[in-house]
Amino acid sequence: MNVLNISDLNISIVGLGLIGGSIAKSIIKNYKPKNLWAIDINLNTLNKAKYEGVINEGYVEPIYPLINSDIVIFCTYPNITINFIKNNMDYFKPNSLLTDTAGVKSKIITEINKIIRNDIEFIGGHPMSGKESMGYEFSRDNMFEGGEYILTPCYNTKDKSLNLLTDIIKGIGFKIVTIMTPEEHDERIAFTSQLPHIIACTVMNNKQFNGKINCIGGSIKDITRIADINNELWSELIVENKNNILNEMKNFINDINNIYDIIKNEETEQLKLLFKKSCHRRKEMIT
Amino acid sequence: MNVLNISDLNISIVGLGLIGGSIAKSIIKNYKPKNLWAIDINLNTLNKAKYEGVINEGYVEPIYPLINSDIVIFCTYPNITINFIKNNMDYFKPNSLLTDTAGVKSKIITEINKIIRNDIEFIGGHPMSGKESMGYEFSRDNMFEGGEYILTPCYNTKDKSLNLLTDIIKGIGFKIVTIMTPEEHDERIAFTSQLPHIIACTVMNNKQFNGKINCIGGSIKDITRIADINNELWSELIVENKNNILNEMKNFINDINNIYDIIKNEETEQLKLLFKKSCHRRKEMIT
Repeated sequence: MNVLNISDLNISIVGLGLIGGSIAKSIIKNYKPKNLWAIDINLNTLNKAKYEGVINEGYVEPIYPLINSDIVIFCTYPNITINFIKNNMDYFKPNSLLTDTAGVKSKIITEINKIIRNDIEFIGGHPMSGKESMGYEFSRDNMFEGGEYILTPCYNTKDKSLNLLTDIIKGIGFKIVTIMTPEEHDERIAFTSQLPHIIACTVMNNKQFNGKINCIGGSIKDITRIADINNELWSELIVENKNNILNEMKNFINDINNIYDIIKNEETEQLKLLFKKSCHRRKEMIT
Repeated sequence: MNVLNISDLNISIVGLGLIGGSIAKSIIKNYKPKNLWAIDINLNTLNKAKYEGVINEGYVEPIYPLINSDIVIFCTYPNITINFIKNNMDYFKPNSLLTDTAGVKSKIITEINKIIRNDIEFIGGHPMSGKESMGYEFSRDNMFEGGEYILTPCYNTKDKSLNLLTDIIKGIGFKIVTIMTPEEHDERIAFTSQLPHIIACTVMNNKQFNGKINCIGGSIKDITRIADINNELWSELIVENKNNILNEMKNFINDINNIYDIIKNEETEQLKLLFKKSCHRRKEMIT
């Protein structure tokens, strides 16, 4: 049990999938909020979560939980989050805090800033974990142990709200919470997450793969682990962060074309230098 | 203890580094050969291995162990193996079996076929494990548990020799031993091992990496794990398998350029199809 006391707060989670379900389970494991509610279009999931004691109540109609919630956590795709907030702007409780969990931030923050009421706050969030499967049934109360979380405040974010959200995030298992602008987030994520996913999928779709390959060793497994992605979500995330991603892809394609020429010309010493550098950087990254 | 009886055989390992050391430790854990010897230029390593009971004797001068060994296992870089065999061709014991462990096969087999005596055999080998560190001090007796091994026989390979070697390889922990031609090996390895390593190093050397990056999540760690490579060995392996690698790189660069255009044109449906395909293939690969 975390020392943070949130027993006078009602919390609603919108979208009870892998991330929403894991946040709900992690909150209920570590805290005793006044109420933990979920809003989802799937009544079966809501019933299951209530039956399991993960939430106090589930709602398909959002009005009741919204007008009574101090914190609303969106665990839906970016465009669904934007539309949901637009459509329900009148219902949010005065002084409530809204946050999301989507993998791109600039567009959401821009859209929300345009329409948000003066008496509520929105802080963008990105938990960097849990991409392996979809749906509530895969959610778990220890998914975030040791993980990293990025928060992107808005123009009107109060320190008090940022501190409260940071405490809750750390309380449910995340080790590192970093604050940055939405633009910094999207630029960084294009390189550290989206480019690797695009590369993994490209390798996986190579014509060499005709069904199962034997004798493949660990390299190709490592580099393609993240090729198993949610295609609906990721195509949306990638299009939303298009400019940053195209920029990173351009750099990468340029670099690998350069290595192509080095290998073609058998510049062994140049190749050694490149490998020395990557070796050094890799060691540095994980320490 | 494996059921295979090799108590009347002398075995020599040439090059007592990570792979040579691990093979020695795995043999001594699972078998009782008549003698297990090592040949290395580093006397300290030989003394250490003898002191630890891993080998019966170590030699800097190869003649005595070569004229008395029934099996010689080369755990050296490809060009060192070729030169060593050329320079010591007169000393190998009649009817002895030679094998190597290098990551490229066509060149070695071609060169060895040119010079090998009629009364000895050479079978190419490639254990697909153990790239993470260099040197005897990192070797261990369980390195090969569950691993994959490729064998590439020569024109004069006898079934008896191939079976003996396969049995020893399985006896020291490898789960799968696959026989193929050196050309098939090199083509396959270009895609499943060398291309992933080149990609990992390219990502790692990206200008975005300025020292340690925070908030990076798991994706970039996964995709760059193999960037920490032995630059001397890998630049040699890559140049030796140049044509296959350039071919694979060309395919990959072509595919990623194609995805670049798809993202640029915001062809979301096309992107979803690509991700569905990679998802499906990834699941199929690991089952």
